[in-house]
Formats: sequence, C-alpha cells, structure tokens
Amino acid sequence: MRNIRMIISYDGTSYNGFQSQPNGNTIQDRLEHALSRLTGEPVKIIGSGRTDAGVHARKQVVNFSTSSRIPTEKWTKALNSLLPEDILAVYADEVPEYFHARKCAKMKTYRYTIRNSCYPDIFRRHFEYHHYTPLDHAAMRRALAYLVGTHDFTSLCSARSTQESHVRTLFRAELTAVPIMDDPIREGTLITIDLTGNGFLYNMVRIIVGTLIQIGEGKRTSESMGLILAGKDRSLAGPTAMAHGLTLWDIKYDEIGDIT
Amino acid sequence: MRNIRMIISYDGTSYNGFQSQPNGNTIQDRLEHALSRLTGEPVKIIGSGRTDAGVHARKQVVNFSTSSRIPTEKWTKALNSLLPEDILAVYADEVPEYFHARKCAKMKTYRYTIRNSCYPDIFRRHFEYHHYTPLDHAAMRRALAYLVGTHDFTSLCSARSTQESHVRTLFRAELTAVPIMDDPIREGTLITIDLTGNGFLYNMVRIIVGTLIQIGEGKRTSESMGLILAGKDRSLAGPTAMAHGLTLWDIKYDEIGDIT
Repeated sequence: MRNIRMIISYDGTSYNGFQSQPNGNTIQDRLEHALSRLTGEPVKIIGSGRTDAGVHARKQVVNFSTSSRIPTEKWTKALNSLLPEDILAVYADEVPEYFHARKCAKMKTYRYTIRNSCYPDIFRRHFEYHHYTPLDHAAMRRALAYLVGTHDFTSLCSARSTQESHVRTLFRAELTAVPIMDDPIREGTLITIDLTGNGFLYNMVRIIVGTLIQIGEGKRTSESMGLILAGKDRSLAGPTAMAHGLTLWDIKYDEIGDIT
Repeated sequence: MRNIRMIISYDGTSYNGFQSQPNGNTIQDRLEHALSRLTGEPVKIIGSGRTDAGVHARKQVVNFSTSSRIPTEKWTKALNSLLPEDILAVYADEVPEYFHARKCAKMKTYRYTIRNSCYPDIFRRHFEYHHYTPLDHAAMRRALAYLVGTHDFTSLCSARSTQESHVRTLFRAELTAVPIMDDPIREGTLITIDLTGNGFLYNMVRIIVGTLIQIGEGKRTSESMGLILAGKDRSLAGPTAMAHGLTLWDIKYDEIGDIT
C-alpha cells in the first residue's frame, strides 16, 4: 500500500467541521467520498487535527493508504474535479509508511482575524470576525506574552475536552494590527492573531481570542491572562470567539522535511 | 424632499446584477425594498451605473429622494439591519437636489482580478478569475497602453449595446502583478487590471480583459489591440471575461467634493 500525503485548503462556512460525525456534512466525509470514487476503493483519511464547524483551513494536512497507482503529480487535479468548490487539494506526495498527519505534526499555526472597524468587509465576511468598538492592541499583546511557553491550558480550553493532559507549548503568540486601506471608507484596523504551538486543545484558540477581546475592550487587564492560566478553570476565561474568524494556517513536519 | 447619497458595497455572486429587471433578485430590488421598509414610503434609487450578474462593487454610489427625517448618521446602520449580509451600506450623506449618482459621476474605476497560478484561492474564489497557464504581463501592459485616451470602443463593448455613442475616455489602464505569498504553496501571480474612465459601455471591461488574456497567452500580439480598436467591430476582439473577477472599485464626483 502507498501512503499519500496531501495539503487541503477549505472554506469551512458550510460544513460541520473537519471530522466525520453522525450528522455528516464534514470536510472528512467529502474528502473520503471523493477519494473513494477516485481510487475505486474505500479510503479513510487521517487529518492533522480537527477544526470546528465554520473554521477554515489554509493548510490542513491529511494522509491515507491506497493501492491506487495514480502518479503523485496527478492526485490534486483528479481529486479537485470530484470535490465541491469550497474544498481544494493543493499538494500531494508519497511518504514513508510511518508518516501520520496528526502524530508526526511538530508545530501548528492558527490565525484568528478580527476586522476592528465600523463595517465588516463584505468580501471577507466569512473569514473575519467583525468587532465594532476599538481594541487596545498593546494590552492584547501584553496578555499574549503570558501564553508563550509550556503551560496547563485547562482554563483556556472547552470544559468538554477529553484530553488526558492539558499541557501544551506555545512557541509564538503574535498580534499584528494593520490600518485598513482597501476599504471604500478607509477606516479601522485589521488585527491578526497568530498562535504557533505543538498542539491545541478543543476550542483553545477561540477561548484565547474571546478572552483577548475582553482585554482589548478594557473589561479585563492584561495581567488577568496570567491569573486565568494559573487558575486552571475554564470559567475564569472569556467567551469562545466566533468560529468564522479562525483559520488553520500552517503545519510543520520535521522527520520527512517540511512540505513547503 | 431630501436627496440622500450612499456608498454601497456588494458581493454580486448571488444576484442578477445591479439594475431591476423582470426576473427580480437584483441589488437595486433589495436596496429599494429595504429603504421602503425603513422609510415607510416607496423609494426609487439611482445608481452610478449597472453591474452585470456576478459582478461585485466595492464602491457603488446611489441616491434617492425621501421625506424621511432619519438623521444622516443613522442611515447606514438602520439600512444594514434590513439588508442581506452580501449588501452593505458604508456611508450616507445629504446632497443638493441636483446631485444624480449617474449623471454627476466624473470618473469610474473597475478592477479585474486574475489569479494566475496552479490553484484558485479558495477564500477569494468568488472574486478572482483563476487562470492556469502563465500570462505575459509585459505584452498585456503594452496592449493596455493602446486604450488610454478618447476612443470609439465599439469593438470592445457588447454588440447588444444600445448607447448612441461608443466614444469614451480612459484616463488610466494599469496592470499590477504581485507574486502570491499567502498561499500554502506560494506559487503564481496575482494580476489586477485597473481601468479608470469617464464611462464604460456594456461588457466593456470584461471584453477588454478577455482580449488581454489572449494577448497574455500569446494568441494575439499587443499591437492587435490598436487594430481591434480601429476596426470598430465587436467580432475583432476576444471573448467576454467571466463576471466574478470584476469589481466596481471607485467613483469620483467633482461638483460636491469627493466622498472619501
């Protein structure tokens, strides 16, 4: 059997998240259905991780076993012809048998985008969270600094998390704020929050962002982020930010070289 | 009666164009319906110009007469609460009675966006035309230079145009090509073609772009653009480019000062 690895991009707007579930309509369902049609055999894919309903992926990585002889360079085009227009395969290669999209992932980056302005951007409305009142970027940056390093993120993940350990390492937590120039009324700021870590817990990025927005609004201090983390209690943190502002941005693999 | 002017942005994907028509489902219909509900009186709007089915607007300008006393600063928020999420009012002011969104427009800019790469951008798929094979930017730029100035654009507008005169002035015709860096596989070029003129004929931008793409592919020479223009015959030009790559980008008004 061959082990095929692919980079998949998707607009998560219309889906119930990445992972297969009883209600159906997931990215995984669509990919497996298209791959099974393409190869003529049942295909089960392994994703680098789940994304929630409405969350997008610029770079999701999957792998699967197949006996198909389709040459590596033909996979993406053939698969895209069978996928809906909001899911796209952009890269494929054949990898050693031991490669596992989730277990071998060394680093993941999620990006959360906030349009902090009077009006949403109509062309980006499914990919940016629109926040009306001004946010204090400096306070948000100070709060993010508390998160870098190895911590127990119990306070900043869903109480429904079933993971044994909530200890994760964040390598980078960065906020970028750029004045909006493309808009017809040139007003406001586009804020992107990039979190890079060795793994993320259920709703972790969205709860971090929901808390960060309250800090940006002055409802909490920057220092509160340290206390929230130390308290190991979900109820200490802010709300879960809306799904549509979140994108799985990048994944790095060590062993077999980075993909791009 | 007050004369209210507004800037409207819209994602044209789901509509049969700007202007009201028997089949319905146009931007104008939605705006008039929402404005009539808001003011409690029938409202007829005047747009700066039509856009075809699937064409977008970053900045469309409309005006309308109303006896409503809603204060200027309340119009956009009130209207947006009644509009679908793909139509957005971003500015409103009260203008002198003589202001007419179409007749007073001095300059319009349309932008056509081509993603010249292996894969479309899944997040921009409704707003960019995806072209697979490489395009010769220098040849396309040379061809655009033929269009600047005052010309009879009969060859470059729909044969169904009912305008008396096809003479229009283009002030600017510019192609920008930027390497794609945001994509997971960082490949290809994003091409934007900006055309600024005193007026545009039916399908004019799309026929210019359709011809330009053939020039970029090497199927026609740059110099052919001059001959096409001189021939005053639609059949000399290339095909009409896809609607979804086109956006009404900007409109300038002289008399009462520019809006933004």
